[in-house]
Amino acid sequence: MVPESAPPGVALATDLYQLTMGAAYAALDMSGRATFSLFVRRLPANRSFLVVAGLSEALARLGALRFSPRELAYLRTLPQIRPDFVDRLADFRFRGDVWAVPEGRVVLADEPILEVQAPILEAQLAETVLVNALHFPTSVATKAARCVIAAPGRTLVDFGLRRTPGIDAGLSVARSCYMAGFAATSNLMAGQRLGIPVSGTVAHSFIEAFPSELEGFRAFASVYPGPVTLLIDTYDTLRGAEHAVEIALELRTRGGRVGAVRIDSGDLAALSVGVRRILDAAGLRDVQIIASGGLDEFELAKLAAAGARIDAYGVGTRVGTAADAPALDMAYKLVEYDGVPRLKLSEGKRTLVGAKQVWRRRGADGRFAGDVIAGRDEAAPGPDWEPLLEPVMRSGEVLVDPELAAIRSCHRAEMAGLPEPLLRLEGPGDYPVELSPGLAVRQAAAEAATRGREGL
Amino acid sequence: MVPESAPPGVALATDLYQLTMGAAYAALDMSGRATFSLFVRRLPANRSFLVVAGLSEALARLGALRFSPRELAYLRTLPQIRPDFVDRLADFRFRGDVWAVPEGRVVLADEPILEVQAPILEAQLAETVLVNALHFPTSVATKAARCVIAAPGRTLVDFGLRRTPGIDAGLSVARSCYMAGFAATSNLMAGQRLGIPVSGTVAHSFIEAFPSELEGFRAFASVYPGPVTLLIDTYDTLRGAEHAVEIALELRTRGGRVGAVRIDSGDLAALSVGVRRILDAAGLRDVQIIASGGLDEFELAKLAAAGARIDAYGVGTRVGTAADAPALDMAYKLVEYDGVPRLKLSEGKRTLVGAKQVWRRRGADGRFAGDVIAGRDEAAPGPDWEPLLEPVMRSGEVLVDPELAAIRSCHRAEMAGLPEPLLRLEGPGDYPVELSPGLAVRQAAAEAATRGREGL
Repeated sequence: MVPESAPPGVALATDLYQLTMGAAYAALDMSGRATFSLFVRRLPANRSFLVVAGLSEALARLGALRFSPRELAYLRTLPQIRPDFVDRLADFRFRGDVWAVPEGRVVLADEPILEVQAPILEAQLAETVLVNALHFPTSVATKAARCVIAAPGRTLVDFGLRRTPGIDAGLSVARSCYMAGFAATSNLMAGQRLGIPVSGTVAHSFIEAFPSELEGFRAFASVYPGPVTLLIDTYDTLRGAEHAVEIALELRTRGGRVGAVRIDSGDLAALSVGVRRILDAAGLRDVQIIASGGLDEFELAKLAAAGARIDAYGVGTRVGTAADAPALDMAYKLVEYDGVPRLKLSEGKRTLVGAKQVWRRRGADGRFAGDVIAGRDEAAPGPDWEPLLEPVMRSGEVLVDPELAAIRSCHRAEMAGLPEPLLRLEGPGDYPVELSPGLAVRQAAAEAATRGREGL
Repeated sequence: MVPESAPPGVALATDLYQLTMGAAYAALDMSGRATFSLFVRRLPANRSFLVVAGLSEALARLGALRFSPRELAYLRTLPQIRPDFVDRLADFRFRGDVWAVPEGRVVLADEPILEVQAPILEAQLAETVLVNALHFPTSVATKAARCVIAAPGRTLVDFGLRRTPGIDAGLSVARSCYMAGFAATSNLMAGQRLGIPVSGTVAHSFIEAFPSELEGFRAFASVYPGPVTLLIDTYDTLRGAEHAVEIALELRTRGGRVGAVRIDSGDLAALSVGVRRILDAAGLRDVQIIASGGLDEFELAKLAAAGARIDAYGVGTRVGTAADAPALDMAYKLVEYDGVPRLKLSEGKRTLVGAKQVWRRRGADGRFAGDVIAGRDEAAPGPDWEPLLEPVMRSGEVLVDPELAAIRSCHRAEMAGLPEPLLRLEGPGDYPVELSPGLAVRQAAAEAATRGREGL
C-alpha cells in the first residue's frame, strides 16, 4: 500500500479471528475500553536497536478502517461470522486514541512502539493492519540505518525494487531507506509519490547490445553528454576502466564528462583500488566509483576494512528484504481491559501491563544512557528524561503528519545519540532498559492476581 | 499489488535506469528484437528446488505497462530522462512475446523461468516489474511447499498476514501457500479476492478480557455453538486443556461441541502429547489439536520427529517472510539482440545465450530424473522428455489464465514427481541439470566471440 494515503480495502486485510472475536464482543455486549501495546519482544541476532518506521501508514490505515458493501457481502458468505455482526460493521469506524514513538526514532526490545486505547472491538480490529504496517518498514529502516553506520561519508542509494516483496514493499523500502539517510532511490514510483530523489546508471544489457563495450560507452555518452555513469564490469573491470578513461577524454573535447563508473561484480575492494589507480593515472580524480551487488551493512564494513576506494554504493536486495532479519517478534497485546491490567502467562511471552511511557536519559556526552519503561500516568524518572511516546491519534483523528524530510532529520539526530555499544554491527549490543519501580509493582501485582484467579 | 488484476501505476514501479537506457535506445534508433531470460542463478542454502509463482501477476503487469499523464509529467521533471523520449512513452505498450514455466511447477538453478522477446525498449522496460512480480511469490511458494513436505497428512493454514511485508505481500503469501497445498488462510482479503478458504480461531486477548480462562471459553462457546476452537495456552496449557474438556462436556448437553484446541507457545511436541492425553481421557478423541508460533518446515520436521500429536498447524511469519531465504539470486538478462547471442563475462555470473527450453525426463518410478536446458529451436533430447516453458503471451496478449485451483492441482502433481534428494529439507539436494550439446556449443562460441571482440 502507498504510505501516506488511505489504502482501499484495508479493512479486509485482517485475520478472520479478529472478526469472530469482534462478533463475540458485540454479542456479549462487551464494549469496555481496552489498551493494547505494540512492541518487539526480542530483537533478532545482530540487532541492538530498531528504527521505528511505518507509523504514517499505520495511522492512514486506522483512518481507512471501514467495510464496503462488497466486503460486507463477502463476510456474509462466511459461516464463521455472525450475520448480525456483519450488519453492524457497515457503520464501523476506528475512533480510538493512539500514542506512538515517532518514526525515525530508536527503540529497544519490550518498549512499546505504539499503544491503542479504544472500545475493545475497535482496538481488536486494528491489530493485523497495525502490525503489518509497522513490521516491514521497521525491519528495513533498521537495516538501512545499520548500512549508514557501516559506510560513514559514503553515498547510499536504494536499488532494491526488483526484489522487494511486491511493488508496495518497494515503495516502503525506498521510504525507509531515505528516512535512514540514503541519498536516493532507483525507484521512480518512490520519486513520484514520496518525492525521494531518484538516481540510476545503466545495466549490462545496454553494454551487451553493442558490438563492443567501448561502442556501448560511446553511444550512451552521445545521448547523455552530461556527467555520465559508465558500468565497467560487463566483460573485464580493469579493461572497462580503461575504456571509461578513453570515453572521458573524448567527452572532454566536447565539454562533457564521465561522472562515475560502476562496478557490480568481483572483488569490489581490490577492483576499486585498481580502477581508482587507472582513473587517477589519467587525471580523472573527480570520477567517482560506485559499487553494487549483494551489499548490506556487513559487506559495507568489510569493504571499508579492506580499503575499498568506493564513493557511493547501490544497496539493493539485502536491505529490500531485510535479508538477515526479515521477521521481528512484533506483537500487539491486550494490557488492560475495563480498567484492569491484563496479561498472559504463556512461556517466554511477557507483556507489560497498562498504558505505558518510555523515558530516555542522555549521558554527559549527549548520547543515550538508558531507558525506563513506566506506567503512562507516572511522572518522569527525573528532570533530564525525555518521553518517547506521544499522542498521534485522538478519537480517530490523526494528530501528527510529519513530512518525510522532517522524519529523516529526526532520525539523523537520533543516530547521533546512539552510544557506542549500539553502533556495533554484530552482537546484541548492550543498553540498559529498566522498568520503573511503579510499573514493576503493578506488573508483579497483575501477575499474582492472574495466577490467583487461575489457581496457578 | 493484487494478483490477477491490472495494477495501477505499475509503469513507474521501475528503476530509473530502465528509462535512461530506453531513451538511449530510442535516440540511437535501436529497435532490434531482444531476448531476455529470467532465472535464478544459485539457489539459497537449504533450497534444492524452486516453485514458480507470480506469473499471472507478472503478465497482468506487462499488460498494464502504460504511462498516465501524471506519470509522464513526473518524468518530465527528471533531468536524467530526455524529454523527447517522455513524449514517446505516452503511446508505450508492451507487445512482446513471453514464454514461461507455469506456476506451481518446479525449476532448478540456471533454468529459465520466463523469457521475453520484444523490441529492446519494451523488453528492457519489463525487467523490474517482472522480477518483482516473480521473486517474492516464488520464494514463499517454495518455502510453503517445503512445509507441506515436512508435515505429511497435516492441515496447514497461512497465519502470516500480520508480519508479511505489506498488505499486497500478504495476499501474495496466501496465494503462494494455497498453491503449495495449504488448506486455508486467516487472511480475509485473500478469501474475498482469491477465493481461498478462510480459517481462524481466537486470540489471547479474548481470553484475557474475561475474569478467567474458563469464563472466556464459555463466553466464546455461547456465541459460536458450532464446532468451536479454544486457545488453551494463555495461562497454563494443560490446565487450559482441562478447561476445554469442561466446556466440551457442557456444550455436549446442548448439541454443541469443541472442534479443536490451539497451542501457541511452549514445547509444542510435549504439550500436544499431554493435551491429547487429557482430551482422550475425557472421551474427546475427535477434538483436534492445532499448533502455531514460529513454525516453518524445520520446526514442523522437528515436531514430527518428536512425536507431536498435532493435527493442524498455523504457519505464519517465517513462511510469510520466507525467513531463512528471503532473497533469491533472480536475474533478467539479455541473451540475444538482433539475432546475435549476448552475454556478460562478469565473475560468477554466467548467462546462457539465446531463447531456451528446459526439457525434463522421468525415471521408471515416475519421478523426475533429470533436466536439459537447450536452445528453444532444438528438438527434444529424446522421446520421453517434456518441455517446461510454454508460450504465455503473444504480441502483448495473454494466452493463458489458469484458475488458482488448477495451479494448485498442477503443483500437487509436480510434487509427486520430486525425487528423494529434492525432498530433503537440508542441503542443496542433488539433481542433474545439463546443457544440451547444441546449447553448449552455442554458449562456447558466444563466449569466444565476446572475448575476441573485447580482446580478452
